[in-house]
Amino acid sequence: MELISCHRCFGGEQRRYKLESHQLNSSTTAGVFLPPQALGAQTVRVPVLIWLSGLTCNDENAVQKAGAQRRASELGLAMVMPDTSPRGDDVPSDPQGQWNFGHGAGFYVDAEKQPWSMNYRMHSFVVEELISQLCTELPLDDQRLGISGHSMGGHGALVLGLRHPHVYRSVSAVAPIAHPIQCSWGQKAFGHLLGTTSDEQLKWRQWDSVALLEDGHLRNDILLVDIGSADPFLEKQLRPEELRKACLRSGQGLEMTIHKGYDHSYFFVASVIDRHLDHHAKALTTDT
Amino acid sequence: MELISCHRCFGGEQRRYKLESHQLNSSTTAGVFLPPQALGAQTVRVPVLIWLSGLTCNDENAVQKAGAQRRASELGLAMVMPDTSPRGDDVPSDPQGQWNFGHGAGFYVDAEKQPWSMNYRMHSFVVEELISQLCTELPLDDQRLGISGHSMGGHGALVLGLRHPHVYRSVSAVAPIAHPIQCSWGQKAFGHLLGTTSDEQLKWRQWDSVALLEDGHLRNDILLVDIGSADPFLEKQLRPEELRKACLRSGQGLEMTIHKGYDHSYFFVASVIDRHLDHHAKALTTDT
Repeated sequence: MELISCHRCFGGEQRRYKLESHQLNSSTTAGVFLPPQALGAQTVRVPVLIWLSGLTCNDENAVQKAGAQRRASELGLAMVMPDTSPRGDDVPSDPQGQWNFGHGAGFYVDAEKQPWSMNYRMHSFVVEELISQLCTELPLDDQRLGISGHSMGGHGALVLGLRHPHVYRSVSAVAPIAHPIQCSWGQKAFGHLLGTTSDEQLKWRQWDSVALLEDGHLRNDILLVDIGSADPFLEKQLRPEELRKACLRSGQGLEMTIHKGYDHSYFFVASVIDRHLDHHAKALTTDT
Repeated sequence: MELISCHRCFGGEQRRYKLESHQLNSSTTAGVFLPPQALGAQTVRVPVLIWLSGLTCNDENAVQKAGAQRRASELGLAMVMPDTSPRGDDVPSDPQGQWNFGHGAGFYVDAEKQPWSMNYRMHSFVVEELISQLCTELPLDDQRLGISGHSMGGHGALVLGLRHPHVYRSVSAVAPIAHPIQCSWGQKAFGHLLGTTSDEQLKWRQWDSVALLEDGHLRNDILLVDIGSADPFLEKQLRPEELRKACLRSGQGLEMTIHKGYDHSYFFVASVIDRHLDHHAKALTTDT
């Protein structure tokens, strides 16, 4: 674990680390915001919001553009922002060189097909490796984790939250790809990573928030989801109505807001990030 | 004036425009944040904070990284964020291809030497052309302008504020190059743009905030200046103590704070931007 950079920020520190990952079979980078509460003379382990970014992003987009540090500092929340895929010359990427698969587009699953399964294990990296590595050196409380993200990262947050209700105390998403098995981005990625036979496609359901809800994965808390009405990917890729219906049918609590006029950019993320930080802080800073 | 992009942001709109500039003898780009108050059915002209960015930046850095839109929206302030120099294949740049002069490094002066004087007129562009062009299509109040900026842009804000006290009602700066005629960045730029003979070097004083104060350019209001104690450029390039002394000797009001542990990055800018927005809003939204 190597510290790449450290900047004082809102009384805390915005750091960037290089980690060696067994799951990804490569080194990877992650942004960590430590609030002032984590930097005092008496070390206190602070709650953590994990933020998963979207297609084409790396660990730096949210760090630089989401504007989350101000409120996270006030709330005493750390933020952990990993990269969106394995990287490196030895890590295979999209065969057609497109932006929507491969490097920058790991979709937070554990790949089962060659050549992807050697590296594309972002799910296990985020759940098992990321926080445990960071906790060895940083005052993070691995018993108080929330998870959120944007677009492909919103998909990741919902899927990880539904699969691991005891790992993540709170879950939210901004403009998530809510039903990847029914959109072209998800179908392309899952086809490569998980396979396309009918048996293999059945396994896709374990990585799709709508399918997980249909298959009985529920949480006791409410999912907070924000989406922009002017998002160009709304109907074909994000499919929030399918999420709404799945929550309604399954009894999963959902607070979904469609924000008039907002698009898919980080300008929207920044505009709603405080709502998400407050949502997670409420769950993570209340004793249960 | 061409609208390049428009994103809903904190109830307002973050826009990017392409402008044709006579002063720069080229087209240029500028970011404009319009607060909700400028977008209502009844058009109200809103006060404007002009933000000048630093070396290597263009008009997008502050837009994406400063996190200014949240508070600007609350205060009803528009923000105008121009590029830092003329650009284009026809615009000469640093002869040695370095980052600290030429494209991205116009230093907000009006060049007098060839070949620079054909394009490098950022001072006149900002003062005479930028706002007047934007005002033809946008509900900006050119009688309520404040000016601020970072690093080279902080230098620009102080110089423009001291030279044009009746144009700008309020002035502030983050980590400004306070005394460019006594630092290597300024000397290189001014040498190219203004010349190096002793007569020419006398004219450098018109583009240096410390020299302007020494030469009697004063404002009735207080200059707000924030600097990080861990800024690697503090002593050799920024020279805030010279600014402090010049204000003291001349009687110019100054509120300068050295913030412990902060560096020269936009993480510092973001950490103090609300202070600056509040400073300008106080001056610009109070009737005088």
